[in-house]
Amino acid sequence: MAMDLEKAGHKDNEDHPRLKPLFDAKELTQWLFYRALIAEYIATLLFLYVTVLTVIGHKSQTDPATHCDSCDACGGGGVGILGIAWAFGGMIFVLAYCIAGISGGHINPAVTFGMLLARKVTLNQAVMYMLAQCLGAISGVGLVKALQEDYYFKYGGGANIVSDGYSKGVGLGAEIIGTFVLVYTVFTVNDPERKATDSHVPVLGPLSIGFAVFLVHLATIPITGTSINPARSFGPAVIYNKDKAWDDQWIFWVGPFIGAAIAAFYHEFILRAGALKLFKR
Amino acid sequence: MAMDLEKAGHKDNEDHPRLKPLFDAKELTQWLFYRALIAEYIATLLFLYVTVLTVIGHKSQTDPATHCDSCDACGGGGVGILGIAWAFGGMIFVLAYCIAGISGGHINPAVTFGMLLARKVTLNQAVMYMLAQCLGAISGVGLVKALQEDYYFKYGGGANIVSDGYSKGVGLGAEIIGTFVLVYTVFTVNDPERKATDSHVPVLGPLSIGFAVFLVHLATIPITGTSINPARSFGPAVIYNKDKAWDDQWIFWVGPFIGAAIAAFYHEFILRAGALKLFKR
Amino acid sequence: MAMDLEKAGHKDNEDHPRLKPLFDAKELTQWLFYRALIAEYIATLLFLYVTVLTVIGHKSQTDPATHCDSCDACGGGGVGILGIAWAFGGMIFVLAYCIAGISGGHINPAVTFGMLLARKVTLNQAVMYMLAQCLGAISGVGLVKALQEDYYFKYGGGANIVSDGYSKGVGLGAEIIGTFVLVYTVFTVNDPERKATDSHVPVLGPLSIGFAVFLVHLATIPITGTSINPARSFGPAVIYNKDKAWDDQWIFWVGPFIGAAIAAFYHEFILRAGALKLFKR
Amino acid sequence: MAMDLEKAGHKDNEDHPRLKPLFDAKELTQWLFYRALIAEYIATLLFLYVTVLTVIGHKSQTDPATHCDSCDACGGGGVGILGIAWAFGGMIFVLAYCIAGISGGHINPAVTFGMLLARKVTLNQAVMYMLAQCLGAISGVGLVKALQEDYYFKYGGGANIVSDGYSKGVGLGAEIIGTFVLVYTVFTVNDPERKATDSHVPVLGPLSIGFAVFLVHLATIPITGTSINPARSFGPAVIYNKDKAWDDQWIFWVGPFIGAAIAAFYHEFILRAGALKLFKR
Repeated sequence: MAMDLEKAGHKDNEDHPRLKPLFDAKELTQWLFYRALIAEYIATLLFLYVTVLTVIGHKSQTDPATHCDSCDACGGGGVGILGIAWAFGGMIFVLAYCIAGISGGHINPAVTFGMLLARKVTLNQAVMYMLAQCLGAISGVGLVKALQEDYYFKYGGGANIVSDGYSKGVGLGAEIIGTFVLVYTVFTVNDPERKATDSHVPVLGPLSIGFAVFLVHLATIPITGTSINPARSFGPAVIYNKDKAWDDQWIFWVGPFIGAAIAAFYHEFILRAGALKLFKR
Repeated sequence: MAMDLEKAGHKDNEDHPRLKPLFDAKELTQWLFYRALIAEYIATLLFLYVTVLTVIGHKSQTDPATHCDSCDACGGGGVGILGIAWAFGGMIFVLAYCIAGISGGHINPAVTFGMLLARKVTLNQAVMYMLAQCLGAISGVGLVKALQEDYYFKYGGGANIVSDGYSKGVGLGAEIIGTFVLVYTVFTVNDPERKATDSHVPVLGPLSIGFAVFLVHLATIPITGTSINPARSFGPAVIYNKDKAWDDQWIFWVGPFIGAAIAAFYHEFILRAGALKLFKR
Repeated sequence: MAMDLEKAGHKDNEDHPRLKPLFDAKELTQWLFYRALIAEYIATLLFLYVTVLTVIGHKSQTDPATHCDSCDACGGGGVGILGIAWAFGGMIFVLAYCIAGISGGHINPAVTFGMLLARKVTLNQAVMYMLAQCLGAISGVGLVKALQEDYYFKYGGGANIVSDGYSKGVGLGAEIIGTFVLVYTVFTVNDPERKATDSHVPVLGPLSIGFAVFLVHLATIPITGTSINPARSFGPAVIYNKDKAWDDQWIFWVGPFIGAAIAAFYHEFILRAGALKLFKR
Repeated sequence: MAMDLEKAGHKDNEDHPRLKPLFDAKELTQWLFYRALIAEYIATLLFLYVTVLTVIGHKSQTDPATHCDSCDACGGGGVGILGIAWAFGGMIFVLAYCIAGISGGHINPAVTFGMLLARKVTLNQAVMYMLAQCLGAISGVGLVKALQEDYYFKYGGGANIVSDGYSKGVGLGAEIIGTFVLVYTVFTVNDPERKATDSHVPVLGPLSIGFAVFLVHLATIPITGTSINPARSFGPAVIYNKDKAWDDQWIFWVGPFIGAAIAAFYHEFILRAGALKLFKR
């Protein structure tokens, strides 16, 4: 009984690729369900805490107003845009490593949405996961604000906004394709057929997901600061709470959800269609 | 039947190192063959999209004309040459991780050419792979142009050209040796003898291929911008479509093909010759 | 007999999750116990040697007083804050890789403290480990001072202090959360349930611990220089021996110990409680 | 028969930890012996080619004399010291990945010397390996000079010298400890006891060796440019052929050999002594 969530959930689908029911009331009574929610909450909290702290720290250490008289300005004093990209990608690697076996390691409503479309989580599980992720993101950014009160508002609060010189359409497009890269990688990591045949698939899984996040940040930080994760954008918007962060907020929900849907379609209908045909013959 | 492509292809050769026929009409009727082409197309698209977007973004954020009055100039505002090298190498890691079990994960006509010489793919498979890769590259760069219209042409369009101060011969030499490093690593990853005896070989495969690409970029970005992949050079040339990109285009086909041929020779005749002798006795 | 330490220690607990006694006099007579102490001593020595040498080298190469007339100033001449973060994280990866099977690979009194709370090491083992780690840290920094005599005192001696503009409370908070990230990852790596079900857990363990250290450094170098390891702060304080380094020293013991305690509580009571319930039914 | 070299060599010692004879005339007649020499030659050639090209490229792109009027100066235009460190460490990862199963993957006379002291290679094997490595290094740097003729001599030729402001004793000390870090990691990777009990040891081996090289470069590039590999210093000295490179050459042979000897002593007498006792009881 206590194994039901595990069975009906992520891990089980890998061995028995059954589709999940849309709604499963029984899981609401099980400890493993709430353990997964706690794990998602804490992981998203740590994700936002480390990454937003890195962003604020970098900006405070390379601010021309305070550092341009010293050599530490001009990028030398902070971790650089490259360091920021590592922070986002690296945290996803470490957190996915830690909680993949507990909650599936989503840490991202767009990933949860993709898994829902592929019927790997139930609707109630998906909604509760997203709630836990958003609350975790708010808590994580709240901690950053508590530690960096002077700098937090001065340096943009870690919020995602479409950069000057780019239209909202471009921002939306960048989020769609970026999330596609991430969620497509997540589908590969969890593909039971692929895991069984290539030994690198199960072992390097969390690392390749982390790298996917790192790489999308390298490419789209100049455009939107890179979200590809609605919770990552929602948390700073709540704490920072300025017009600009709210005006663009829809982009960081619609974009990632569309990208995740395309990835689910590509993996389930194009790539796995071949696999299914294979087993039929 | 449906397994034939898989069997005759990449994975099978690892267990039964038979040589493939030069032409195999049957595979043209099989879904797995087209699935592999789609996977190569999408992977090359994503490869060019992320990497060229990173290049353009870096250049736009460190342009002295617009940023030199701020501290963000001087390299601090972009991901740096190091970040660009990570983008190329990291994407190959993630994409090879994702599609190694579907198409072999070439994402590069030079790799396909090397595999053809070693008789691990048929001639029709090789031609179709290269076509899919080139179309994917054009599509990926097209997406970048759509998102970055203002900046795309201003900052060189991600095209490979031989840098000022270097002769075409030097550019060709750099491409030959760089592709040798990459394709030699690919041969090692796919060597059935090596996979059987060292557990790091199958598991770290995609990571070591990604690192090979990353390292060659560190070394030869100053000379040619680094191609070691004809599709990577062809896509930007088509979209950017300026004389200079077309003038040097042959270097990024001839160089990688020669490098891949030397790697195939080195692996098949020098290193595996020893292995074959070993089994004969 | 000689296997007792191994059995009663780290590795054994993974297979037979018995709690360890608080005090075990027998282990004091065993060679494996002293071998583990030597391994912790040498590992902490190497950790501090490489990381503090990297910090001093970076600062000497980007000092505006000596380099601002050349282009090498402004960050270009040193490894950057990003390079410093890699030094700390990378060394923990390599050292944990090397000695995980010998001593458990703590290299950090806070990790040892977390393991003591979870009853995975005895009290005498914990005290001796911490002593070995602190002596190793002093020795490692002593070597740096011997090599860099001119620069060592000039560039801060690698000591952890709370940066100007941050209160001691903020420094303490940053150390608590940072150590939580690290020690929580360590608990995951050593969780026998997780190791048995996910093949990435045992294989990528040292790499994910190293990344955790790397990421916390990206986030909190601007605040405290990042310790999350009392031995790492104690060694430089002894060799540098200036007021400021001693004034803040308590923060780098109290913070990491609190963070480790929270991580032990979270893993043992929240996450494993679910696991225990699971086995009970 | 043809298996003799393999048996008497690296791989065999892992399963049957016999000591090797000092001299074994039979191996001189075997193809596998010459295959190993070719692999070491090509690997050291590629190692020096990629790394020295990266060094020269970085220096040419950040030269204040030619770039200080543009924003690309000040580190932004090159891969940075961090990129150079990645080049050295990353190449060792990829090359050790590729040839570990063929020659043991030394690519470094100091590693070969350590293995000789531990009786894992015969004396004639060690001498021939070192010869192949030195010839490979000369060839690799020769290729760089051919590609970068204008820049090669202008930017120091990739030679190791003790930096201004450091004594030769400091340079020697830095090389000794740095090589200890590397060779100690190599001994761990090849330890049969460790490989059998921890699944991360055989799988992450080449990656941890590569990281060891990367980290030592972060720490000691400011002092000697970092050698920890006599062939890496010998190749540039021959091609560059200036007094300074020859004057300091002894440091990059004596230092690495002493460091390798201490690592062999530490692993064989301290760490494995415990292991041996364990088996005796």
